[in-house]
Amino acid sequence: MNTHLRRYLPVFDWGRTYTRQTLSNDVIAAVIVTIMLIPQSLAYALLAGLPPEAGIYASIAPILLYAIFGTSRALAVGPVAVVSLLTASAIGQVAEQGTAGYAVAALTLAFLSGGFLVLMGIFRLGFLANFLSHPVIAGFITASGILIATSQLKHILGVSAHGHTLPEMLMSLFAHLSEINWITVVIGLSATTFLFWVRKHLKPTLRRLGAGPLLADILTKAGPVAAVVTTTLAVWVFDLDAQGVRIVGDVPQSLPPLTLPGLSPDLVGALLVPAILISIIGFVESVSVAQTLAAKKRQRIDPDQELIGLGAANLGAAFTGGYPVTGGFSRSVVNFDAGAETPAAGAYTAIGLAIAAMALTPLVYYLPNATLAATIIVAVLSLVDLSILQKTWGYARADFAAVAATILLTLGLGVEVGVASGVTISVLLHLYKTSRPHVAEVGLVPDTQHFRNIHRHSVETDPSLVTLRVDESLYFVNARFLEDLIQKRVTEGCAVRNVVLMCSAVNDVDYSALESLEAINQRLIDMGIRLHLSEVKGPVMDRLKRSHFIDAMGGEIFLSQYDAWAALSNPDVSKAAE
Amino acid sequence: MNTHLRRYLPVFDWGRTYTRQTLSNDVIAAVIVTIMLIPQSLAYALLAGLPPEAGIYASIAPILLYAIFGTSRALAVGPVAVVSLLTASAIGQVAEQGTAGYAVAALTLAFLSGGFLVLMGIFRLGFLANFLSHPVIAGFITASGILIATSQLKHILGVSAHGHTLPEMLMSLFAHLSEINWITVVIGLSATTFLFWVRKHLKPTLRRLGAGPLLADILTKAGPVAAVVTTTLAVWVFDLDAQGVRIVGDVPQSLPPLTLPGLSPDLVGALLVPAILISIIGFVESVSVAQTLAAKKRQRIDPDQELIGLGAANLGAAFTGGYPVTGGFSRSVVNFDAGAETPAAGAYTAIGLAIAAMALTPLVYYLPNATLAATIIVAVLSLVDLSILQKTWGYARADFAAVAATILLTLGLGVEVGVASGVTISVLLHLYKTSRPHVAEVGLVPDTQHFRNIHRHSVETDPSLVTLRVDESLYFVNARFLEDLIQKRVTEGCAVRNVVLMCSAVNDVDYSALESLEAINQRLIDMGIRLHLSEVKGPVMDRLKRSHFIDAMGGEIFLSQYDAWAALSNPDVSKAAE
Repeated sequence: MNTHLRRYLPVFDWGRTYTRQTLSNDVIAAVIVTIMLIPQSLAYALLAGLPPEAGIYASIAPILLYAIFGTSRALAVGPVAVVSLLTASAIGQVAEQGTAGYAVAALTLAFLSGGFLVLMGIFRLGFLANFLSHPVIAGFITASGILIATSQLKHILGVSAHGHTLPEMLMSLFAHLSEINWITVVIGLSATTFLFWVRKHLKPTLRRLGAGPLLADILTKAGPVAAVVTTTLAVWVFDLDAQGVRIVGDVPQSLPPLTLPGLSPDLVGALLVPAILISIIGFVESVSVAQTLAAKKRQRIDPDQELIGLGAANLGAAFTGGYPVTGGFSRSVVNFDAGAETPAAGAYTAIGLAIAAMALTPLVYYLPNATLAATIIVAVLSLVDLSILQKTWGYARADFAAVAATILLTLGLGVEVGVASGVTISVLLHLYKTSRPHVAEVGLVPDTQHFRNIHRHSVETDPSLVTLRVDESLYFVNARFLEDLIQKRVTEGCAVRNVVLMCSAVNDVDYSALESLEAINQRLIDMGIRLHLSEVKGPVMDRLKRSHFIDAMGGEIFLSQYDAWAALSNPDVSKAAE
Repeated sequence: MNTHLRRYLPVFDWGRTYTRQTLSNDVIAAVIVTIMLIPQSLAYALLAGLPPEAGIYASIAPILLYAIFGTSRALAVGPVAVVSLLTASAIGQVAEQGTAGYAVAALTLAFLSGGFLVLMGIFRLGFLANFLSHPVIAGFITASGILIATSQLKHILGVSAHGHTLPEMLMSLFAHLSEINWITVVIGLSATTFLFWVRKHLKPTLRRLGAGPLLADILTKAGPVAAVVTTTLAVWVFDLDAQGVRIVGDVPQSLPPLTLPGLSPDLVGALLVPAILISIIGFVESVSVAQTLAAKKRQRIDPDQELIGLGAANLGAAFTGGYPVTGGFSRSVVNFDAGAETPAAGAYTAIGLAIAAMALTPLVYYLPNATLAATIIVAVLSLVDLSILQKTWGYARADFAAVAATILLTLGLGVEVGVASGVTISVLLHLYKTSRPHVAEVGLVPDTQHFRNIHRHSVETDPSLVTLRVDESLYFVNARFLEDLIQKRVTEGCAVRNVVLMCSAVNDVDYSALESLEAINQRLIDMGIRLHLSEVKGPVMDRLKRSHFIDAMGGEIFLSQYDAWAALSNPDVSKAAE
């Protein structure tokens, strides 16, 4: 088996060493994950505005394809909350919920997203995801959690409402308050309260009662199943659907159908940007989960191959009645904790879900939407973490500004504007920071060869020699800053005859900075001052050698700052500064 | 006089030391500049699509206002070629040339541009201009020169044509070829040839004939005046205007009128973005000219105060029948070479131009447009410098890509798209470069305390200790790169027990990088490996101390890399690598 094939098809890597023990571990994990996934898939389909079966279909083919192409051994791929919200927001702009066009648009979105991910993987463009800084992601996930929870309130109240931003949702809910169905409210609030209790208190209670840690964990994760069973029975026994409680209703009993995404230019044009956004956000979420789990077993995931794995999963969803998917946090953690050792566990989960799709769907006929909404609310409220605001405020104001803007704009103007603004703001703030770099004027620490900031340390200086250490790469954004800085410094001191730029922290000098250095050099020559450089790094020096700057320089390039000092300072004049 | 007032009104700075000798120098410079400015102002107004007097009016009030608020002692403010082109491009989208609406839109553009510059100055936002990298500016100026020269061909040929991009202009010229006026062509080509000859050969010829350098220079700069006088006389004597040669015609004899810019929301909305673009490009051009001239006399200009000076000049243009202005290269150099010592020289130039506007305008009635076009073509072709392509290709491919894109997009899609794309591309390429920083694995150079790249130098290493030196600030764009890199390195070597990140070139660690460091630390702990840092800079350390990272670290923070080596390496295992 050649390594090239193994790079693109990791299945050949782990498949060769598959043992009976691995099989048994994988199957156990698959059973546990399947039970957890059934209500979750139905719920996320509801969140995306799609019929419930779409959530189950979106978990079958994608899981199988990821098992073949993905590199993580524990990642479980399928519908997740944030991507479901993004899907609803994107498709809501091109079709009405409940129409055939809406479902087709969901396939198109999955197709475009899958194609984009595969292309990014082939061209190894995984680094593009890095434009989403951690604070922007944290802010976006928190705001999405709030939006998702709010969007589910209509199911808890039993009213119709709509909207893609927080003000729209709240105003729409308020306008429909008179339609409240009180039986739905009772079911919804009971389910929510029960699920919160399960999440917070069931595990410690079970442990106190003597259950093993794994069993306690599995029973806790099965909480939604209990809520589903109980409320479904309640609706069926008391005929509550006749009293206005909305239920899931008929779900076709079938394997995932073969479907074709719509590819009309209008539809593709309208969904392309949302598809790119969904791809990148899904990829970021998935890779960070996969990396965390891989590290626990000293394994490694390949981000560019992950793009291909996730892309294949989304293309699979597009042709089997699904919608955009990605690696989910909670399902992956359950898979990992339950002992999954290889991606084959995913394949067994897919088989379990396929059986459920064929055999179990009649059982959810009486399942109330309010219960599904409750599972969503409880799941997403764990995503809401406003402490990121306080953490970034304490650490760096630029990061705080990015988080705060992302949260406010996502809530107020919707997910797409929110993410785009967050990215733009982080890039601009980074450029702003590097546009005014930290610059220290340095002098010699007595009896050493070290040079430190004259304002922080007691050092020797020479009025005829100014040494500036710029703590940033020199590039277009700070090139003119450097010109102003040096001009200002040399017009202050009349005795200056030599200026040294100490370049130990300069990792790059781009063409703009080169021209600024040339201009600085020329202006200093006009004033009778020589410009020198010291401690220039290898890669920067290689590049400078290709320009005419070195020939035009009034001064020299010194290997170390001490060499510069030794050559240029006048021992009679230099004095200790405090 | 308090210093605060002097900061905002530099006139109080130089005004206090004004002597009879300074006055005499300033007056001589003003006479020379005035003679040069009359044809230039008419020509640039033609380029902007405005009546000729607008060019003269745009040189009077702006020069006076800049003399009060500006900091450069030699900068001459008025219409310039690139800004005139930008003006034509911006106004062409909202009004027809020759209509009253067109002239009002020019006033609005000057007003918006002036307001924006003043606001930028007050909020000290001059650094925003830094987003235009030198290669982008060079590419833009070159492409603008080509566009301007092409736009003037219609005047040389005596046809009507239009368009704001190179393909549009060429196609329009081609479509109107049948209208060629051959007398105009003769005038235009003669004037162009004459002016090229003057520019290239007159000065050396005069020097050979014994003229002093200053006189030779002034006579050379007066070349356009000679062309204007000769062709005007030719048209008048031979009655060429009756044969279809287009002439300047009636120019009102008056001081600059009091005008009001149009401020309807539609007009402001349409012109706001172009006004910002014109402001920034004008500012960049002006500051680089001013800085070059100031350095020659060891003076300094204050970029933020320059914004206020240029802003005031543009506001002045808006209320006195002008259009957007900035500090021009050629007029400033003439002013400087002619001996101007203070901004008062500008005020005397304004008086000279005011006299010209009242007394001399009837003299340009018969001046052919073709002559003005010839002066523009000869002036702007000196801006065209395609060598920037070759220079950046040799120096750095990223800079080459930015130049090439700016030139092609400016020519093909117009000035606004060109500049915007250039800025976007430079920012993206910078981010891309920093997203994959240079990382060296280092070892100890024997018998020293220095650590160098193990692949370039013969150094000591220890298989249990990996030291990585990252040559870039750690921030969101490369945070995940760092995670992948370390994960990859430690999964390769089974014996690794300590990882040291050497931070001598790390100038910043933002919140994303902090979280990545926390994730790396946690994953390494899961693998039984400890993460350490060494040579962390003061400002970075201050910030890290405000986080929980240092408490959570598996390892320590060492002052120097040698301390880390001394504490962590196992002398029995370490060996020399080649």
